[in-house]
Amino acid sequence: MALSKKPVTGMKDILPEEMEIRDYVISVIKETYGKFGFTSIETPCVEHIENLNCKAGGENEKLTFKILKRGEKLKIDEAKEENDLVDGGLRYDLTVPLVRYYSAHAAELPAPFKALQMGNVWRADRPQRGRYRQFMQCDIDILGEASNLAEIELILATTTTLGKLGFKNFQVRINDRQILKAMASAAGFTEEQYDDVFIILDKLDKIGEEGVKEELAKAGYADTSIQTFVGLVTSLQNAENPIAVLQNDLVAKGNLDASVVEGFEQILDSVRASKGDYFELVFDPTLVRGMSYYTGTIFEIAMPEYGGSCGGGGRYDKMVGKFIGNDVPACGFSIGFERIIMLLLENGFKVPGADKKTAYLIEKGMSKERVSDIMKEAQAARANGQTILVAMMNKNKKFQKEQLNAQGYEEFKEFYKEELKH
Amino acid sequence: MALSKKPVTGMKDILPEEMEIRDYVISVIKETYGKFGFTSIETPCVEHIENLNCKAGGENEKLTFKILKRGEKLKIDEAKEENDLVDGGLRYDLTVPLVRYYSAHAAELPAPFKALQMGNVWRADRPQRGRYRQFMQCDIDILGEASNLAEIELILATTTTLGKLGFKNFQVRINDRQILKAMASAAGFTEEQYDDVFIILDKLDKIGEEGVKEELAKAGYADTSIQTFVGLVTSLQNAENPIAVLQNDLVAKGNLDASVVEGFEQILDSVRASKGDYFELVFDPTLVRGMSYYTGTIFEIAMPEYGGSCGGGGRYDKMVGKFIGNDVPACGFSIGFERIIMLLLENGFKVPGADKKTAYLIEKGMSKERVSDIMKEAQAARANGQTILVAMMNKNKKFQKEQLNAQGYEEFKEFYKEELKH
Repeated sequence: MALSKKPVTGMKDILPEEMEIRDYVISVIKETYGKFGFTSIETPCVEHIENLNCKAGGENEKLTFKILKRGEKLKIDEAKEENDLVDGGLRYDLTVPLVRYYSAHAAELPAPFKALQMGNVWRADRPQRGRYRQFMQCDIDILGEASNLAEIELILATTTTLGKLGFKNFQVRINDRQILKAMASAAGFTEEQYDDVFIILDKLDKIGEEGVKEELAKAGYADTSIQTFVGLVTSLQNAENPIAVLQNDLVAKGNLDASVVEGFEQILDSVRASKGDYFELVFDPTLVRGMSYYTGTIFEIAMPEYGGSCGGGGRYDKMVGKFIGNDVPACGFSIGFERIIMLLLENGFKVPGADKKTAYLIEKGMSKERVSDIMKEAQAARANGQTILVAMMNKNKKFQKEQLNAQGYEEFKEFYKEELKH
Repeated sequence: MALSKKPVTGMKDILPEEMEIRDYVISVIKETYGKFGFTSIETPCVEHIENLNCKAGGENEKLTFKILKRGEKLKIDEAKEENDLVDGGLRYDLTVPLVRYYSAHAAELPAPFKALQMGNVWRADRPQRGRYRQFMQCDIDILGEASNLAEIELILATTTTLGKLGFKNFQVRINDRQILKAMASAAGFTEEQYDDVFIILDKLDKIGEEGVKEELAKAGYADTSIQTFVGLVTSLQNAENPIAVLQNDLVAKGNLDASVVEGFEQILDSVRASKGDYFELVFDPTLVRGMSYYTGTIFEIAMPEYGGSCGGGGRYDKMVGKFIGNDVPACGFSIGFERIIMLLLENGFKVPGADKKTAYLIEKGMSKERVSDIMKEAQAARANGQTILVAMMNKNKKFQKEQLNAQGYEEFKEFYKEELKH
């Protein structure tokens, strides 16, 4: 078979210029999250196929890259369907592996456990511009913290990191699944209808209030329910004091627990009190977020330069229970690492404080002794903190220097066979 | 299907303590190699199945984790063998992907191209202690540099990195495939016999000189060939000046090109002139290294604390040609990242210069306003460079503090509902 030079469909090679930015962003993320007490962990990229199919991954489960069984376990003749042929798959997110990890190691881990994961995930999505089948995710999660301290810390850590990377004027939108459900319940929808109703609500910023009403009507819901529901949403959107609206319209009428609103207010107040002015924390009653595993607060980052979301997360208190039987409170926030990198690249981001770089160019045919001396000099300069590239001098030295210039080498030291030339 | 808490067979979860060391080692590696002008690159973890089967991976090809075709391309009924079912696999090394990468992007890359790759590779090896099916590799390669400058830079960069990690008294053993071949040719072996003869020679440190002779005899080789070959090897091993032996016994008799010895001597001299005294560079005429793609110098790291090799590499001038038709000189050095981590863990390595860490403990039921103030204080301290963990105070505060102590939190600040208690 002929060899293929291109990367596999939908995945990409990362060239040095982008890699330099990625390495820098990774180091800022690790350092900043470290200051908040998050500790790095890692899980294998390959996960049990049964865990990947456990319904915690939503639509992503359909996009799993599956791994063929090996040796005697692979029985091609007897195989009827995909799952007969595979025993593992590449993880499509970092949440399912985190929950498995926590279930396996809880006894060895601090409580609460503040985890930072940076790692690739894979989804066999239809390839499209700027969207790849292998991409880096960057998640922080707090397991074992029932209070809203978790949300506050996650939002502060994530926004501090984005601030350090120079992002500003962005929004963190926040909502709570329990608020969504209370609105739906107050409007008379049944629990089975919630998800369907929320999916339509999610389109509000695209199709507008009337569009949402139309779609809900088309889905056959009662007009009074639709009017009440959309009325609640818009009154929350337009309220100067939405917390008061929550209390008057939902808590007072028995649709929402007072503690939910208190906790929600605590998050808003604490984050707003300690955040810089480079971002806004906004209560968005239309925020839904796709994953069905969320049980409480949900949040999302909206960047002015970018239409879609640049990160998000929420509380998922019921997922650990799937593995170990009893529930453990859990809350996470994921940065859209690839989008962040894309935005930095598009904005011509330069990694700050890059060292001065020097290139040593050696004429061909230099004596053994001189080469040894030059290498010694290079080693001493490196030990001194300098970046030194040593290369043989090309015939076209001008072109070589131009190329090196483009790589950031501004100073040159040329070594010739005859000292006089130097 | 029940969910599995353990990682998949042969792969491991990485706990925070190990991860801290890994992150530190990665940062030292990136920084040190950066000083030598190596630039980071990345390839997808998934590679074309035809590239993984291209015979450049030696025995590792048999250990590939293969990835099932998706959608309409998967025809289970018609499949006769594994390769009908798969279109990709997880990379088993970083060399095949590097060569593909270089072939695809050479026009956009500097010449010579100095690449640093740190990434996971996967091999479906029999699981055994300390050896995993997913492991990190850390390779530097120089493509487009025909001179021995490549070897010198690779050895200096790798050993400088190991020195910064505190390793000492280790050996870099070096040999050259062309010297091996010259000895075999001088002894009268035919080219087809070389690989077989070298595999037996490779066992010399385990089975001794007599053992090698016996095995060669058992394989049916002529006694004069065996005596000459082993005689050459041992005279090189015992020589005070092995370069002179190479010149007298191999160059003078027309078995070896003088330029090979000159280049080899250049490497020895230059590295020895500029290296610190924390390692030795040793000419080892018995060094073979398994991969058939090596064409010139080969090298390996031997640590006193560890029996096996902790890294190795060599020149492979013919591999790029498989992809693009014309050969490009190439030389690489791979650090045994996982073994390095294992040795550091076994030696109780502590990451130097870790920050002082402070934990803020908040009594339950604290007022909203106070919580906001505490978070504000934490944010200010973090902005000031401190590491601050904020947690709710447990009922068993003593145990909580002990746990935090174990995680490196030495200072505590406790916040109570009633100021007086504080």
